[in-house]
Amino acid sequence: MQLKYQNLKQRVLNANLTLPKYGLVTFTWGNVSEIDRDLGVIAIKPSGVEYELMKLNDIVVVDLNGEIVEGDLNPSSDTATHIELYKAFEHIGGVVHTHSRSATIWAQAGIDIPALGTTHADYFYGDIPCTRNLTHQEINGEYERNTGLVIIEEFQHRNIDPKAIPSVIVSGHAPFSWGKNALDAVHNAVVLEEVAAMALATRSLNSGIKIQQELSDKHYLRKHGKNAYYGQR
Amino acid sequence: MQLKYQNLKQRVLNANLTLPKYGLVTFTWGNVSEIDRDLGVIAIKPSGVEYELMKLNDIVVVDLNGEIVEGDLNPSSDTATHIELYKAFEHIGGVVHTHSRSATIWAQAGIDIPALGTTHADYFYGDIPCTRNLTHQEINGEYERNTGLVIIEEFQHRNIDPKAIPSVIVSGHAPFSWGKNALDAVHNAVVLEEVAAMALATRSLNSGIKIQQELSDKHYLRKHGKNAYYGQR
Amino acid sequence: MQLKYQNLKQRVLNANLTLPKYGLVTFTWGNVSEIDRDLGVIAIKPSGVEYELMKLNDIVVVDLNGEIVEGDLNPSSDTATHIELYKAFEHIGGVVHTHSRSATIWAQAGIDIPALGTTHADYFYGDIPCTRNLTHQEINGEYERNTGLVIIEEFQHRNIDPKAIPSVIVSGHAPFSWGKNALDAVHNAVVLEEVAAMALATRSLNSGIKIQQELSDKHYLRKHGKNAYYGQR
Amino acid sequence: MQLKYQNLKQRVLNANLTLPKYGLVTFTWGNVSEIDRDLGVIAIKPSGVEYELMKLNDIVVVDLNGEIVEGDLNPSSDTATHIELYKAFEHIGGVVHTHSRSATIWAQAGIDIPALGTTHADYFYGDIPCTRNLTHQEINGEYERNTGLVIIEEFQHRNIDPKAIPSVIVSGHAPFSWGKNALDAVHNAVVLEEVAAMALATRSLNSGIKIQQELSDKHYLRKHGKNAYYGQR
Repeated sequence: MQLKYQNLKQRVLNANLTLPKYGLVTFTWGNVSEIDRDLGVIAIKPSGVEYELMKLNDIVVVDLNGEIVEGDLNPSSDTATHIELYKAFEHIGGVVHTHSRSATIWAQAGIDIPALGTTHADYFYGDIPCTRNLTHQEINGEYERNTGLVIIEEFQHRNIDPKAIPSVIVSGHAPFSWGKNALDAVHNAVVLEEVAAMALATRSLNSGIKIQQELSDKHYLRKHGKNAYYGQR
Repeated sequence: MQLKYQNLKQRVLNANLTLPKYGLVTFTWGNVSEIDRDLGVIAIKPSGVEYELMKLNDIVVVDLNGEIVEGDLNPSSDTATHIELYKAFEHIGGVVHTHSRSATIWAQAGIDIPALGTTHADYFYGDIPCTRNLTHQEINGEYERNTGLVIIEEFQHRNIDPKAIPSVIVSGHAPFSWGKNALDAVHNAVVLEEVAAMALATRSLNSGIKIQQELSDKHYLRKHGKNAYYGQR
Repeated sequence: MQLKYQNLKQRVLNANLTLPKYGLVTFTWGNVSEIDRDLGVIAIKPSGVEYELMKLNDIVVVDLNGEIVEGDLNPSSDTATHIELYKAFEHIGGVVHTHSRSATIWAQAGIDIPALGTTHADYFYGDIPCTRNLTHQEINGEYERNTGLVIIEEFQHRNIDPKAIPSVIVSGHAPFSWGKNALDAVHNAVVLEEVAAMALATRSLNSGIKIQQELSDKHYLRKHGKNAYYGQR
Repeated sequence: MQLKYQNLKQRVLNANLTLPKYGLVTFTWGNVSEIDRDLGVIAIKPSGVEYELMKLNDIVVVDLNGEIVEGDLNPSSDTATHIELYKAFEHIGGVVHTHSRSATIWAQAGIDIPALGTTHADYFYGDIPCTRNLTHQEINGEYERNTGLVIIEEFQHRNIDPKAIPSVIVSGHAPFSWGKNALDAVHNAVVLEEVAAMALATRSLNSGIKIQQELSDKHYLRKHGKNAYYGQR
């Protein structure tokens, strides 16, 4: 059992260390987790620890109630958000939260990131939703848990499949992304940042533009699902 | 014959590896090819392989029907686009496709990249065309081949010489560039990205501006054609 | 006493060397200082010396009247501004001045940097103020000292706690930040630059947007004050 | 005499190699020269040679008629512009031409780079002028020489001291900067690029803003002239 945690922790450490590599974080502003659904545990970045100093045993293992199972440090203050996402989105294996610049700009503006091209369509099958604002009560109560619940509400309310759109922006706050595992979640966070940056300038050049629906279908489906033909399969 | 492929593959590998160096690609989003017209073969990047891991024998050699002549991996999913460009533009030796940020922004906006200064005129003799949208039928049929055909149609319809404007942006998608060989195609892709970035901000400062025609003539012709005097000749 | 200065100077040297690391300075355009309130001295960067060449003993130690206590070089031309800030803001231990691009843009525009999201709220409890213009007399008199006095006036006039908003932008000029010590001041300068950049694009997407007050309260207070729960405490 | 050229060539080589370091050039798009007024010669970058491959003896020495005095390569195609600037601006020792992104954007827009803050005022005592367009005749005649003449005309016509504003943008083209020597010219080109970038966003936030005249006077004069007190003097 100890060994299983070490592997999980190593993957989570590695995924966290890719955040500065891809320019997604300033200081400690980001956290990646991965779940082991068989063991019922989540490994996550400790709160406020610098990436250059982070070691394997700094990674914290918690259960689905947020209780620490292994580790001496406090887990990320956003742990409760991660837990809600794992509970509601049953297929996902990794979650990442950053304040990457362009995605955060859209979150601060409170506007969905529109699907405007094939770069977006290769990874996200439609606009990336911006949540509603949290209420005063939600903010002053279990804030991080409620952030997760508001994300889930947005996907349910709009009938969005979280596998098909593996990212969200939280109004006034910043993005969350997810994937098959920790590294795949970070991969999606990198793409999110790139499409968010492209969308900012595209809309400023041509304010009414949208991607053709057929083009979105084509690009998403050539990379995902049973008829995919991109890559080495 | 084997030796000829190795040289071709090496040049194509090298050209692909310059894409991350110049900041033109995220992950595996780009592909470069080169044609050997005597042998009737094209060497191209494999689909979805990371640049850091790519080795000489991962490069795939295909014939002009897209059949694999040498190599164990799938060629780039955009191979059919490359092939159409080689067939229609007889003088070109290399093709590159990227999702470089600024050029893709213009593609997503569906607007030609306007010629606004001598940086543009040194390489592109006029506006860089944005294709029409593909039809539903073109998207749902042989999509990648049709992308090539729509590019060619745009150049023929507007009577543009592909030697004088060695790049295009595909509406809702991203740019393609070409050149004498694989490396020259990448060179043009770097310039395309730079002039696309400059044009975004120039138009936002002065929405009606255009380059003087005489200045475009002067700069293009001092670098190209029989009276060129730039560089070491 | 000599030993105490060496430690202070070393911390100030280190903090100055982080400025190019974080991309906050061009050439020598930035200076960091730290005060030792027990000894009544301030260590500060010398004027116009390149970061690559700066050595421990180039750091200048001055008293609170600006008189040189140790060092052979001229102190930063902005020393008088630092001194006024240390005198008025009794809790601060470090001050930094840069011309970092995005913060300077807001300063040049003469507009407060608005609080638009949690990235801002994590560090700054409200809008980051832009001072009034200095008068002709203030500019032509003790300019650098008056810059400090105008900053202090702005905080007093608006009743802002400099601990809660550890940065300011000086109209037509550039930002100053402060913190517990030299390195903490630089940390705040990095965040200032990031939120300034985000705010530029956010306002261009959605010109009327503001952060919810409850969200600002929540994020600031989860990192600061007696009920803070972010990080390892 | 040979030895004197070697030193001059070495300084010019070094100054050219700082261009990629500061991000001012793509490929070979930039050239720096320095004059030795006693010997009546100018050393300048060869045309179209890559920075990574450039060696000391690739630097070309020409006289004030543009005749090659030493060197086997063609001098920069912009040599005639440099020569006119040296002839008209008697106090300058170095000239640099780049297509650095933000300065070129203002040149393409055909708009002076406005003085909006102290970053600008520290180096440029007023707006950085954009020349008029060259006439058809000027473009089709001795184009590079005429570019120099149009720059000089602009400074004379507006009664600008080229020492006080050591840069210009040529309409539809790109910037030229100058200084005491080759390296000082590059220094000014770096500042030009930074203030051009800041001015773009400042004007987009606040379209009517200008720097206070007193602030411009103060900052320029604390770094330049007989009462300067910035740096180590």
